[in-house]
This record gives sequence, structure tokens and C-alpha cells, in this order.
Amino acid sequence: MKNHKVGVLFVGLNGATANTSVAGSLAIKRGLMNDRNGMLTESDIFSDLALAQFDQFVFGGWDINHSNAYDAARLNKVLERDLIEDLRDELEEISPWKAIITEHDVDYAKKANNILSVNSMEESVNLLKQDILSFKERHNLDRVVVIYLGSPLKQVKEKGFFHELPLFRKAIQNNDESISSAMLYAYAAIESGCPFVDFTPNVTLKVPAILQLAEEKQVPLAGRDGNTGQTLLKTVLGQMFKIRNLKLTGWYSTNILGNNDGLVLSMPEHRQTKMEDKLGVLEPVLGYNHFSHIVDIHYYPPRGDNKEAWESIDFSGWLGLPMSVKINWLGRDSILAAPLIIDLVRLMEFALRSGEYGIQSQLAIYFKHPLNATARGFYDQYMLLQNYYSGMKRAVLKSANERCANMQPEPLNV
Amino acid sequence: MKNHKVGVLFVGLNGATANTSVAGSLAIKRGLMNDRNGMLTESDIFSDLALAQFDQFVFGGWDINHSNAYDAARLNKVLERDLIEDLRDELEEISPWKAIITEHDVDYAKKANNILSVNSMEESVNLLKQDILSFKERHNLDRVVVIYLGSPLKQVKEKGFFHELPLFRKAIQNNDESISSAMLYAYAAIESGCPFVDFTPNVTLKVPAILQLAEEKQVPLAGRDGNTGQTLLKTVLGQMFKIRNLKLTGWYSTNILGNNDGLVLSMPEHRQTKMEDKLGVLEPVLGYNHFSHIVDIHYYPPRGDNKEAWESIDFSGWLGLPMSVKINWLGRDSILAAPLIIDLVRLMEFALRSGEYGIQSQLAIYFKHPLNATARGFYDQYMLLQNYYSGMKRAVLKSANERCANMQPEPLNV
Amino acid sequence: MKNHKVGVLFVGLNGATANTSVAGSLAIKRGLMNDRNGMLTESDIFSDLALAQFDQFVFGGWDINHSNAYDAARLNKVLERDLIEDLRDELEEISPWKAIITEHDVDYAKKANNILSVNSMEESVNLLKQDILSFKERHNLDRVVVIYLGSPLKQVKEKGFFHELPLFRKAIQNNDESISSAMLYAYAAIESGCPFVDFTPNVTLKVPAILQLAEEKQVPLAGRDGNTGQTLLKTVLGQMFKIRNLKLTGWYSTNILGNNDGLVLSMPEHRQTKMEDKLGVLEPVLGYNHFSHIVDIHYYPPRGDNKEAWESIDFSGWLGLPMSVKINWLGRDSILAAPLIIDLVRLMEFALRSGEYGIQSQLAIYFKHPLNATARGFYDQYMLLQNYYSGMKRAVLKSANERCANMQPEPLNV
Amino acid sequence: MKNHKVGVLFVGLNGATANTSVAGSLAIKRGLMNDRNGMLTESDIFSDLALAQFDQFVFGGWDINHSNAYDAARLNKVLERDLIEDLRDELEEISPWKAIITEHDVDYAKKANNILSVNSMEESVNLLKQDILSFKERHNLDRVVVIYLGSPLKQVKEKGFFHELPLFRKAIQNNDESISSAMLYAYAAIESGCPFVDFTPNVTLKVPAILQLAEEKQVPLAGRDGNTGQTLLKTVLGQMFKIRNLKLTGWYSTNILGNNDGLVLSMPEHRQTKMEDKLGVLEPVLGYNHFSHIVDIHYYPPRGDNKEAWESIDFSGWLGLPMSVKINWLGRDSILAAPLIIDLVRLMEFALRSGEYGIQSQLAIYFKHPLNATARGFYDQYMLLQNYYSGMKRAVLKSANERCANMQPEPLNV
Repeated sequence: MKNHKVGVLFVGLNGATANTSVAGSLAIKRGLMNDRNGMLTESDIFSDLALAQFDQFVFGGWDINHSNAYDAARLNKVLERDLIEDLRDELEEISPWKAIITEHDVDYAKKANNILSVNSMEESVNLLKQDILSFKERHNLDRVVVIYLGSPLKQVKEKGFFHELPLFRKAIQNNDESISSAMLYAYAAIESGCPFVDFTPNVTLKVPAILQLAEEKQVPLAGRDGNTGQTLLKTVLGQMFKIRNLKLTGWYSTNILGNNDGLVLSMPEHRQTKMEDKLGVLEPVLGYNHFSHIVDIHYYPPRGDNKEAWESIDFSGWLGLPMSVKINWLGRDSILAAPLIIDLVRLMEFALRSGEYGIQSQLAIYFKHPLNATARGFYDQYMLLQNYYSGMKRAVLKSANERCANMQPEPLNV
Repeated sequence: MKNHKVGVLFVGLNGATANTSVAGSLAIKRGLMNDRNGMLTESDIFSDLALAQFDQFVFGGWDINHSNAYDAARLNKVLERDLIEDLRDELEEISPWKAIITEHDVDYAKKANNILSVNSMEESVNLLKQDILSFKERHNLDRVVVIYLGSPLKQVKEKGFFHELPLFRKAIQNNDESISSAMLYAYAAIESGCPFVDFTPNVTLKVPAILQLAEEKQVPLAGRDGNTGQTLLKTVLGQMFKIRNLKLTGWYSTNILGNNDGLVLSMPEHRQTKMEDKLGVLEPVLGYNHFSHIVDIHYYPPRGDNKEAWESIDFSGWLGLPMSVKINWLGRDSILAAPLIIDLVRLMEFALRSGEYGIQSQLAIYFKHPLNATARGFYDQYMLLQNYYSGMKRAVLKSANERCANMQPEPLNV
Repeated sequence: MKNHKVGVLFVGLNGATANTSVAGSLAIKRGLMNDRNGMLTESDIFSDLALAQFDQFVFGGWDINHSNAYDAARLNKVLERDLIEDLRDELEEISPWKAIITEHDVDYAKKANNILSVNSMEESVNLLKQDILSFKERHNLDRVVVIYLGSPLKQVKEKGFFHELPLFRKAIQNNDESISSAMLYAYAAIESGCPFVDFTPNVTLKVPAILQLAEEKQVPLAGRDGNTGQTLLKTVLGQMFKIRNLKLTGWYSTNILGNNDGLVLSMPEHRQTKMEDKLGVLEPVLGYNHFSHIVDIHYYPPRGDNKEAWESIDFSGWLGLPMSVKINWLGRDSILAAPLIIDLVRLMEFALRSGEYGIQSQLAIYFKHPLNATARGFYDQYMLLQNYYSGMKRAVLKSANERCANMQPEPLNV
Repeated sequence: MKNHKVGVLFVGLNGATANTSVAGSLAIKRGLMNDRNGMLTESDIFSDLALAQFDQFVFGGWDINHSNAYDAARLNKVLERDLIEDLRDELEEISPWKAIITEHDVDYAKKANNILSVNSMEESVNLLKQDILSFKERHNLDRVVVIYLGSPLKQVKEKGFFHELPLFRKAIQNNDESISSAMLYAYAAIESGCPFVDFTPNVTLKVPAILQLAEEKQVPLAGRDGNTGQTLLKTVLGQMFKIRNLKLTGWYSTNILGNNDGLVLSMPEHRQTKMEDKLGVLEPVLGYNHFSHIVDIHYYPPRGDNKEAWESIDFSGWLGLPMSVKINWLGRDSILAAPLIIDLVRLMEFALRSGEYGIQSQLAIYFKHPLNATARGFYDQYMLLQNYYSGMKRAVLKSANERCANMQPEPLNV
């Protein structure tokens, strides 16, 4: 089987998560590191699928800072200095294209050093599509997946035109200020035939027009808001409480983190959707909402990219007697996110290759607020994933594998 | 449908767990308390089964202390004083029969005030069977379930005769010192046609002869070692780590508790099986054992019946980077155990009524070390339970319900 | 020695802390409870001082709710139901006078059922003074101490007239809207010759005019903001880090509590001074401020009057290597505060009796933000307390004790 | 002032603590690291004393493994790899002399690669003294301090001859098996005129004959068992509970650590004295002992040199209501110990230079079980330290400083 090549483009290439995904993938490809812990696609249920391997990936993307991936890795301080040095040559070759921003972006983005200068949203979209096309041609890529990892944006004001693709297109032409930079990235990616994943709390994939575009272009989508740490525990323990019929009476959660994500989330105008996602996970799992639920996030520089969470959970047992459990989570934000992102790249590329498109709801386990969710508890989401992939017809698999073998790079349908 | 009556006999009637099960059930029956939290049988999957209700239970049992259930409740301090007073009349009517002990029992049992004086093991068995029979007749009971809640015994020395029922019977006649008091209770219960549950870490239900007896008498069995708190978290989080492919590198667990169970478990000769059960839960869930696993239990009087646990868990993420989570569990031992015990009474009574016998392996979710376990992760065990009961044929259910309606109290097949 | 009587008046009589102080004192007086834990005045250093005993106290005060102390105790749920019933008769006799409020009070106070209807601030002051005087005469009291335990007020706008007593008096006559209800209580108390303690984060005792009044009337003052739990740990551990020369790099603190204090502090306009007090304790102890310091408070109903705090503390050791300590504090707000309040009543009454007046800076250990603080670390504050009381000249003690023996109730100097 | 040179000899040179003390001191001397956090001698109260500086130290010692200090640092993994490499040349020059062992040493020591082969205890002592003398002469040292950092030994059996120096000397000649290797090191050090510090739980400095020898030789002593982390918190919080009159009802402590110290302490025969020291700290601080106190230590390899502790503390407040606090300490064993050791080297060298000898009880703050302790609470111990050094007469200081300036290396009084 020919070793097809898969482009991986990040919005926010220099952020800790994207940068760790890139550097870590190169380390694994080079054999410097072998631990693929945290990747579900390395487990047995995916062993029959011809998922892309680390030597098939080519990385790129956009960022508001023009640093190359080596400089970004030094700044992000997620990986050991030694490992970064070993990868220096390859990392230095990966530099971001200029980013687009709108009023929804964090204020400091306006003063950043790597922003596209454009006259219209339409121009932005065209330049983004051009970036993708050139990348595909230059690296002779079979397929390209776009992963959105930009900062949480200011809240978007819902508009009527969000609901109709033709009106949405017209609004782009009119530079409507309700259209966010994230929507333009999604629009350009989907128009270019690229599967699009939103790993952030942004509402981009809640815009019906964007879903319509994906249907039209037959492109798979996945989102929203990666389920990495604290919320993972909620979906897991929430289901435990549900099954054991122990009634939750309160769940207080606080997070302290010191990376750029923490900084942006400390700004009230950028945290709302994230809060809603975090607050929204328990009720669908438990089936009731008469409990106190508080979630807080604080920017705490001593923590760096590590994310510490503390949970104080109260529940009621037999005869209504109260009990509690406290959890202190000492995670590493990017190290938890990166393997999930590589999973999503693999599965979205496979979906495209298999002719799947629209929302890939079998991927609910990856997200805090899964689109089209039919399962919200962690184990239910796992069953969904397992049943989907183990149940895929041999024919589909065979066809996907063959298409993979025979496929020539095609022009993007731009 | 006639309201058949179900006898519930506890070995260790005055211990915190049995006593709480009794007093709580009376409180629910009387409508003084309505919270049935912690009972799986109150959830939807059991709604079609005509499980026994609280007004159908009649309680009794054996204990080494002759206090009645009111005095025991005052001593155990699990329930609010007010509630105990409200139930005083009913509780004072429930007093234990004299208990049997062997060399495996905790030393202080020998000086206890409610011990059967017998000349042989055979006499013990006969007296226990007589207790059961009289109880059944006096209360006009349809079926009787026996729940073993005695203290963890000293380690039993395995013997050849454990493997053959006829030899085991002969060994009873010979008063073989390898036969524990718990085995005699199980033997008497099964001979009397009573479903038998071992909620303790004792090895009683690992003795093949006892399983053979249950087959012969067509009696259902369930065990071993109730999965109430800390181990519950292990089976839940273990499965989370497994699914998310995060590699466990270490799990340190410590427990502090101040009730009688804590006191007995602080004695080295009484803790071994419990430790083995607690240490044995992770490997079957994870599929590997190359991690540090420590479990400790301490008798700490300030905690009373509450059980506090602390877990320090280490795992390895992408590229082998270490992360950790710490859990502080503030549970109430008896309040967690009692609803599971009422569940087991209901399901074992239903099993007997439905013609089921032998090890009820669908009940794995209730135990730390489930017999005949085909599932060890919490969610897998839940699936097993759900599939079993939701999949029971209408005919079986109908037949069980009818037998329940028509059945007359029968003589126990002693 | 004649058993002189001491009046204790609370602003906020029905709040959890005042109500617990009252009910607990009655329980101790009656011998129903003997544990005086948490009272420093029960330790050896005070044994030579003839401090007032529990049978000398007479309680009263103001509150925006007209419930008597029994109903308040039932509502506050701090003490056991049984104990409250035992004290029912005495508690039912203690009802609050009508409270005064200004714009700074929490909004719901305006709809409360026990508010003085007045036309001017001057009228308010006169009515408060009349309350004190009648109380003193009715109960034949030697001295009366006033403890402010009202809710944290909205932020006060500083005015020039705060700095000069004559101007402040004039501003009262003019009903100046910058004067808070707490200032009026303080004014009336001091004018009536009563020692005044502010146990809350309000800024009342930062108003110079009020301090001038206390000098003029020779009345002792103490404040601000009782140091009960989380901040206590900060002053203790802060001094440990200082002495061991371990450099603090960050301290994240969060509090969850479900009582009325938690509710009011959850309102942004009422929390500011409290936050400043909580944030202000570390720098004076450590001598530097280049560390991250976050303090948060959340209203979390499941906790009731209990206050849970979680601290995540980072420090730098030899060669700059980072270490951390996490603390989970499970305190009872009123149970920690009440013994300190009785301490303050005793020591302020003793101060007045000994002829002391103005800020009693030796009491720094009791407050988060002690007035005129010369010591900020816990142990330094303890040394200050110890040196002050153990160093009091025998003559002073003797004179105070004699005055106590001979004194007749005097008219308040109103 | 001439820059006098100070020899620092460690028993256990390659253990994590000694090795970190050596490497860290070199890093500070070289200016590679400047953080002296954790050293009390860097605070103001010592600024008038001419304590030895980092460029005055010369390191050496004994160890059962013959690795040089570079190899040991690589193995111990306490310091960053980069720093170790920067110090490689200097570290490689520091290799241990052969160690002596007795039956009390940990079993694996018998198979170690760097053990002195001797025929008698007397020969051992003479060889140790010869090591010290050669070291002093080779490096032209003014004074040499010996720090005992060997593993906790098996329990020593007390003998009558421990109480009389002449009998003890005779027992050495008779190779009495109750004499431990640690006693021989202490004996040799004191005979050589070197101040001797025991930073371990061993009982060496509880042997009266050794104290008598120190008096005879006019050598200062300090010990026992460095107070680095968990016990530090106990002495600090214990004093807080005492002062606030909050009654301790229970304190459960557990430690998990993965270094060699953890391994040895996991052996029952080596942990007893350590446990006694850890258990013994609260009562002297609190003044009562009617509380549950449990301390446990576990060898947990994932933790490496880090030492994690968890404390569950129960106390009783006003009216006897229970409260609790839980502490999770994430420390670094050697990073906490090393600065204390350098402190002790400085202060013991200063003591010798000032003509002090015998037990230096002002150093109580450094030890879990301070010899001749007059203060057991942390702050009382700090006051003792502060008063001692700030109160040292100018004359003494002057004389010490002059002796330091003029002194020529003298032959050790062997």
C-alpha cells in the first residue's frame, strides 16, 4: 500500500497544544519517544483500520506570532529541553502563515506580529484557501485536516443569517461583524475539502450555515471543546453516581493554570462559552439538575502549562446521609490534549477517505460539548465509539483502504 | 398479587452494616425516610421485576453480642439519634440468636456474651438450621436470604476435602479445625434452601464443596467482599485509564476508619484476604501489573463508622510525561453498604423465586472480588447487570411473579 | 468579690456567629457543654486576670430579622437540635431590637421585617443609645460590650469629614450618604461608653473620627475582621516559610460556604474589603510580594455553616527547586468564631475596667487586618498577646479587680 | 581576614542528601545557582556572625558504594541533568572512602563494593581517624565537621557500658556487638576533634559515653533526625492548635517516597526509631497525649526522591464540635535537607571556633528529636535559636572571628 501523506494544519500553530502535537509527533516518528499513552487510536479496537501513521503527517498552520516551532517549543516549556534540541532542525522548518483576526479575538492579538493585512473577509477566506492549496501541492498531500486550536473568542452575537448558507455567504461578502475569525477558518477549510475539528469552546460549529457547507462539500466535522481533564472526571464520575444511584447534591470545581489559555480564560469576555461547556456536562449524564454546580478558572502563573484542578463533590447516600469526595488533579494540559488531537486527525482523515461527512457524532468521547451528542456519560461515549468502529462494515474498510492505496492527489475543490 | 414475605438473616446482626440495613429498612417501610439512594434496584432497569418491597422483609440473625437492634444502633452511631428513638419499639424486638465461633474468629469473640455452647460442628449446623426453620415458620415466610456480615476471619488453611462435598461433610463430622464458622453458616443456610451472600473478604465461597452443595440444593450464591467505596473508585477510574490509554504507574491507597471493622482489620492475621481483594482489582481492569500498588488500612477511632480514604495515583501520558491525581474519599461505611445489601436480598430472593441457582455472576458489580467474574471494570460490570436483567425473558419474569403470587410457605428442605 | 454583670450586644444578633455565641454561652453556663476549646482566654496566661465568667453575661442586640434566638438557632443549624431544645426557654427570651440600615446594607435588608423606621441618622443614633441604656438599666449591668457582626457592607466612599470628629458629627446631622449603618452603630456604642469590636471586614474602625471619639470617651476598640480559619493558616504557615527561608511563589485559596455570610460575599459589591483583608495578610508576614496570590469565595449551599477551604501553595527550595503543599480545611465558621468573640468580650470588658482605651493593639491575633498592627505573623501576634497580659503590672490587675468588686452600675455617659 | 577552610565529611557521601549538599554547594560556589532558599543561616539574625562561605568548604566522606559524586548525582536524580553536567569535573574528583559496617547496617550493605576490610572495631576507628587526618592535612583545613547521613540502622540493644566512657572504650576493644557502625563513626570523629551531627533517627547521640567523649574532647554535637517536612508541619501546626486552644483528637500521617531512604524505612527492623521520633513530636508541643496518632511510611518507587505526605488531622472546637484539616505535602527530600545540613556545618564550625562544646541545644529547630530539648514547638525553637545567636556576646563573636583569622591548621588531637 502506498504511503499516502496527510497534511495537518493548526489554527494556533504556536500555542502549547498544537506545538506539542507537532513536536511530539516528530519525536515519535523519529523514535526518540515511544510512549503513545493517551491515544485511543492505539488501542485494539482500531487495529483493523488503516489509520495514518506518524511518518505520514506533514504539519503547518497559522498563528498570530511568527515564531517557528522550535522557538515556540522553547517558550511553551511543555517538553524537556533536551528533546526540543534533538528536534531543532525539523522544528525550525515549521513556521506559521499569517493569521486572520476579527473583533472577537483577544485584544492583544491586534498587536501581534503575524497578522494578515486584508481589506475584506472574502479576501481573508481566499488567502486561507490559497495557503491550504499551496501546502497540499507543495507537499504532495492526499488529504489535509484542519484543527482549530485558537484562543477562546469573545462571545459571538447570533444572527439570522447564521441559519442559511446563502445568507452566510452574503454576510461574508458584507464583512458582517458577527462573523468571527474562527468561522472564516472553518469556512475556508471546508470549502477546501478539509475535515475540520474545533477543539475549543468556540461556537463555530454551532452555526448551521457551516454545517450546511460541510454537507454540501461532503466534509466531516467534529467538535466542540476537547475533553481532557477535569471534565473527563465529571463524565466518568457522573456516570458512576448515576449507576450507583447516589444523588449528587453539589460539585464545586476550580482550575488553576498558568499558560496562555489560562490568561485568556481569565478575561471575563473570553470565558463564557468555556464555562457553559464545563457547567453543561453533568445534567445530561445524571438526568437531573437540582444540585449546586460551580466551575471556576484562574490564571496562576506558577503552574505554567500544568493544569491543577480541585473538585469538592457532595452526594447523598441511603437515608439521605451526606458524603463527599475531593479530587486534586495534577495534569499537563498539552500532554493530555495532544494525543487526542492526533487521534482526531487520524479519524477525520479516515472518515474523509471512507466517504463520511457531516458531524462525526461517534467522536463524542473527545469533547466536552459533543455536537449531535447521543451519549454524554464517558462510558456511553466509549461504547458509541467502540460500536461505531468495530461495527464498520468490512466493505467500507476495504474501500477506504483501497482508496488510500490508489488515490492520487486531487485538486482541492476550491 | 399476594404480598409474600421475605426473611432476611444476617450473620453479624449487630454489626454496623447489618444493623443499619435493618434500621434503615424499617425507617423506609415506616415512611420516616424516603431516600433510597445507593440502591441500584431502585433504578429503571429493575422496574419490570416484582422485587420484594420494604414491607415484605422480616429481619433476624446471629451475633456474638446479645444486644437487641435498638441498643446496637445506639452503639453503632450510624443513624441519627432521633431516628433510632422513633424506631425503638420495632428495633427492640429484634435480638440475635447465639452465634457460633471457631478458631478463625477474632480473639475477643471467645469472651463474647452470646456464643452457642456446642459439642461438635454438626451440632452447630443443626442448631443454625433449626434457627432458620423456626424463623421461617414463626413469621410465615416464603423465602429466607442469609447475608454473611461477620468480621474478617483469620486465614483458613486450605485442605483437600474442600474440593469434594462428601469429604467436606465428613470433615464437619470430624470437627476439622480448617473449617471456619463462616463455612458452617454457609453450609447451614444452603442446606436450608436459603440464598447465601458473602459480603466480606472471607474465602467461604471459594470452597468448591460449598458451591457443590448450592448446586445440589439449587440455591443461588453471591460474593465476595462488597464493593462500597475505595475499590469502587478503583474499578471506575481503572477503566477510565484503560479506555483513555493512560498508563498507570502507581496507586497508593490508604484507609482510616474507626468502627469495629477497622479494629479487626488492624489485626495482621485478619487483614490478609481483604488486602488481597483490594490489591487484586486493578490488574484485571488494566490488563497489566507493572505499576506500584499499595493498599493500607488503619484503625483510627476519631473517624467512627465513617471511612476516609486517600488515593495518590500516578499515570504516564503522551511521551511518557508523568501526571497524578489525588482523591480524598469521605464515605460512611454502613450507609454505602446497606443499600447494596438490600439490593442483594431482593435480587437473590428473585433469583430463588425464578429458579436460578449457583453463583449469580451477573451481580459482579456488587463485589470487590466477584466470583466467576467475567467483567472487572465497573462499567463492564454494569453492562453485565443491565443486560442480564433487561434481557430476562418475559416468560421467566412472568413465571417468577406467578410463583410469588401462588406460593405457600414450604418446609425448608432440611 | 461581687459578681458584676456584663452586657453583650451584637449587631446581627440572629446571624450564625452571634447566635452561636449566645446559645453556646448559655449551654456552658448551664453546664450542658463544657468544651471551651478555641478560647485563648481559657489558657494559662490569663489565669491571673479576673475575666468575666459565663454566668456574668447578659445577651442582646439588633437584627434585621425579628426572630428570637431559639428560632434563629433552628434556622442556623450550627448546634445540635437536642441542645437547642434544652435551651429553648432561655433562647426564646432573647429577641433583637429593630436594626438600622443605610444604602450600604445588602439589598434584601430593605425588605426585612425588623427595621427601625426613622427620619434621620441622628434619630437612629439616639434610638440605638436608648436601646443600650435601657438594656443596661433593666439588667443592672456594670458594663456593656458591643460586637459588630453585621454583613459585609457595600464599599464606603471615603469623605474628608471622616478625618475630623466635629465634621463627622455634622455629617451625621446632614444624613450624609457616605455614612454607613455600621458607623452609626459604632458611634452610638462609643458614645454610650461601650467597648466596640468590629469582627467583620467593614472599614468602620478605619474612620479616624470614630477613633477620635473613642479617645474622647475613653472607650477601647478592637478590629478588624476575625481571623478564624483560612487566614489563620496563612499567618501561621506564612511565618513558617519566612523562618525557614523557603520562598513563596504562589498561594491560591478558595473558600466554599453555604451560610448567609457566603451569600452576601458572593455579591461583588459586598466582597471587596473582605478580599483585600484576605489578600493583605501574606506580604507583611513574608516581607515580599512577588508571588501569585489569589483568593476566592463561593456561595455553595450544600456546605451550610461549614466553611471549606482549599489552598494550593507553591514555594521554592534550595537551588530554586519548586515544591508545593495543598491544604483542605473543613471548618465550622461559627464554631471557630464564637470562642474568639467571647474572648474579645472578656478582654474588652477587662480593658474598660482597667482604664484602657483606644485601639487595643495587643489583640492583633484575633483579626485578619489588625488595627495598628505591630505584628502580623501568628506567632509574633501570640508573643504580643502573651507579653501584654503576663506583663500587666500587679497593681493594674489589682486595681481592675477591685474596681470590679466595688463598682456600682453607673449611668452611661450619654 | 584570612579565608579559613572547612572540611565537610559525610557518612553516606553518595546518598541523595549528602550528594545534593555537595553538588548544590559547588553550584552555588560557582555561581551557577543562587537560590539559598531553605537556609536559616542566610537570614538576618546570622548576619553578624562570620559563618563559613561556600568557597571555604571542602567535601569528602565515606560510603558503601564507591561511585564518585558525579555518578551518584546521576543516579540520585535530584538535580537537573544540565546542572550535573556543568559540575562534572569537580564532582568526579569527589569519591568516598571505604565505609565500615556492623550487624546493624542494612543487609544489602554487606554485599556493597566499598566496605573496609578490618579485623576489629579498634582498627575501624583508627582507619576512620586516619581518613580524617589525611583529609585535613591534604586540604590544609582549619576545621572539619562530620555529618552522619547513613541509613537508619537496625535497633541497637542498650548495654550498661553505654553509660561510662571507659567501659565503652573497653567494649570497642572487645568488639562488642551492641556497638553500631554509627557509634564508631561518631567516636572517631569526636576523637579527631570534629563536631559531629547526627541527621538520622539513629540513637548514636543518646549514648552517654559518646556525650562524655565530646565533653572530654571539647567537641560540639547536634542531633537527632533532621526536621525537614512532615514533622516540620507537625511542630508548626501543633503549636497553632495549642495556642488557639483547639484540642487535637487525631492525627493520621502517611508518607510515600521512592528513594533509598524509603527503601530502608520500609524494612520493619530499620524503621522503629524513625517512627518513634515522628510519633514523639506532638505530645511535648501540645501538653497532652489523649489523641489518636498514626504515622506510616511506604516505599513507593514512582515518587523517586520526592516525598509526598498526607495528613488527616482532627480537632475539637467550641462545644466539642469536630473539625478537620487535610494536608498534602509534595516535598523534595534532599532539597529540604541539604540547606539545613549546610546550616549545621556552618553553625557547628562556628561553635568549635567559639570554644563551644557538648550538645548545642540551641539547634533544636533542625531536629525531629532534639537532644536536651527545652523547646519542642517550631516557634519556640525559633525563639531559642534567635535569642542564642542574637544574644551572643560581642566578645565571643569577636574572639571567634579573630581565632578564625589567625588560626593555623593544627594537628588533630588524635
